[in-house]
Amino acid sequence: MSDRIARLRDFLEEPLLVTNPVNVRYLTGFESSNAALLVEPERVRLFTDFRYIEAAQAVAGVEPVQTKRALIGWLAENLSGRIGFEAEVLPYALAESLRSGGLELVPRSGLVERLRAVKDEAELEAIRRCCAIADRMFERLASEVRFVGRSEREVSWEITRLFHEEGADGLAFETIVGAGPTGARPHARAGDRVIEAGELVVIDAGCTLGGYSSDYTRTFATGELDGEAREAYEVVLAAQRAGLDAIRAGVSGLEADAAARRVVDESPFAGSFGHGLGHGLGLDVHEAPRLSSESTDTLEAGNVVTVEPGVYLAGRFGIRIEDDVFVTEEGVENPVRFRKDLVVVS
Amino acid sequence: MSDRIARLRDFLEEPLLVTNPVNVRYLTGFESSNAALLVEPERVRLFTDFRYIEAAQAVAGVEPVQTKRALIGWLAENLSGRIGFEAEVLPYALAESLRSGGLELVPRSGLVERLRAVKDEAELEAIRRCCAIADRMFERLASEVRFVGRSEREVSWEITRLFHEEGADGLAFETIVGAGPTGARPHARAGDRVIEAGELVVIDAGCTLGGYSSDYTRTFATGELDGEAREAYEVVLAAQRAGLDAIRAGVSGLEADAAARRVVDESPFAGSFGHGLGHGLGLDVHEAPRLSSESTDTLEAGNVVTVEPGVYLAGRFGIRIEDDVFVTEEGVENPVRFRKDLVVVS
Repeated sequence: MSDRIARLRDFLEEPLLVTNPVNVRYLTGFESSNAALLVEPERVRLFTDFRYIEAAQAVAGVEPVQTKRALIGWLAENLSGRIGFEAEVLPYALAESLRSGGLELVPRSGLVERLRAVKDEAELEAIRRCCAIADRMFERLASEVRFVGRSEREVSWEITRLFHEEGADGLAFETIVGAGPTGARPHARAGDRVIEAGELVVIDAGCTLGGYSSDYTRTFATGELDGEAREAYEVVLAAQRAGLDAIRAGVSGLEADAAARRVVDESPFAGSFGHGLGHGLGLDVHEAPRLSSESTDTLEAGNVVTVEPGVYLAGRFGIRIEDDVFVTEEGVENPVRFRKDLVVVS
Repeated sequence: MSDRIARLRDFLEEPLLVTNPVNVRYLTGFESSNAALLVEPERVRLFTDFRYIEAAQAVAGVEPVQTKRALIGWLAENLSGRIGFEAEVLPYALAESLRSGGLELVPRSGLVERLRAVKDEAELEAIRRCCAIADRMFERLASEVRFVGRSEREVSWEITRLFHEEGADGLAFETIVGAGPTGARPHARAGDRVIEAGELVVIDAGCTLGGYSSDYTRTFATGELDGEAREAYEVVLAAQRAGLDAIRAGVSGLEADAAARRVVDESPFAGSFGHGLGHGLGLDVHEAPRLSSESTDTLEAGNVVTVEPGVYLAGRFGIRIEDDVFVTEEGVENPVRFRKDLVVVS
């Protein structure tokens, strides 16, 4: 882990107080809901309370320090000097509390997140394992699970069960099972609606293993579709391929998004792809970089991003197809094996 | 829901921008990861992006406003005047972004949380339902599930499965299954350790239904225990009863904690109860009020709190017993039915 701290130090103009628990985990391997890391040129202190101090003492390369449970208040009383802090994470009142203790605070943004956006080989391997589980889950979902006549919620449970059976630690996020009109709302949850024959069903699901995740979407058909739904499926698939083809190191998140969006906007479904193309995937399911029409990121080799265009027709259906891919100098490595043509389930 | 907004208005000295998603849900019923509510004397605006605007339009008593996905940046450009904000929730950088747009910002703390701490009858009924599911889950866990020879993780999965079968939406938090020395770490996760005969196993588990939760702990024995472990169990049970007996409206969180802690500290296990007695339980699994030696809260009728003393002997075992109770003027209503004497599982 100390390699990550060494790389972080290269960016620091003053000591950095890391309070985002995911960033603490990334830098040290230490997992706690109440911890902070102070990275100084010559030492690294790991602050946590009674409940986690035993685990903190086992972390290599840091000095563990036991604080009160009110950790930020304790730091305000016990630290001094000029330090940077994670201004996009630390709540305003806690920053003011640190400042009132006499610290000279420098707001900083995205320093650890910038490191996290570029994955090392161990992280890529962790994500490959999550994708392999998701591939097996989707294979079994398509072949073993009955959809018609069951509620979205019941199918969601089958996904939970299959991920467990295939070796996942758990779900990366609440599974979306959006049948028919439910699927037209991109972030609808699995509900009590009973899935009918001849519908489209959006399945957005991912699992975690060892802190990393997969995040796939496939859209299945429960029988014969009308011509418009079939056409929309082909448009989304073409948009997803255009997005994948556009991605490589040096391309902006905005350009990647535009490449996929153009396919939708030049089709009869223009204007119906109402969210960004994708997001970074790592210790957080949503992290840097972003692929969207508002993105200011430029892709780098080692980024891991989702590519997930969609078409949503309110009150009727939604379609989304999503892979997780590794950005390389030449293009992408795509660890996702599950098929993308229209799968008909029963 | 408008009743809650009316009660909130009584506390406001200026319009309040509510950005905590759980508080937005409490006040409006609207669920979104990207929303803000501006509560003014004469109107309430609900801001959200494309993905959630259709759902926002269905919320009664608010004016839905569609923003960019970068919601706070959009608000900075489109709001003006003097407004309060949730300073313990909003990150420092976002508060500065609002301020840079010309808003006169007033940091406020715990305004909605203060309302949320006192549950109305519908909320109590929602929690009773979660407790009824947890009662059935624990009954089946104790009678149907084999512990010895299985990993903590496998038992954790059985709990997930039983909660689902009993009708829960999902888990309220990651289940703790801490056998033997694992149980001595109060926040250890379920791991790969295989449960042996003659051990204590701490089970801290809860489910969600309709946004509310249950949060129970029981400690089972896998066969005959030595005298010290049996004695420690009786101490924790007596401490839990002392905590329950001490709780009623008007008692401080500090006094309730002390009542339970005294029992442990007057036993051979003095000093081994290394966390607070409990926490509020509602839309968040951890919310106001707190029962601990650092608490500044005073209990009110309608509070829902966990009561969960423990004894932890490093490297050997842990014991914790936890109920969820409703604070009344006279004492507590305890919706938890599952037994608290030492249950031996196989």
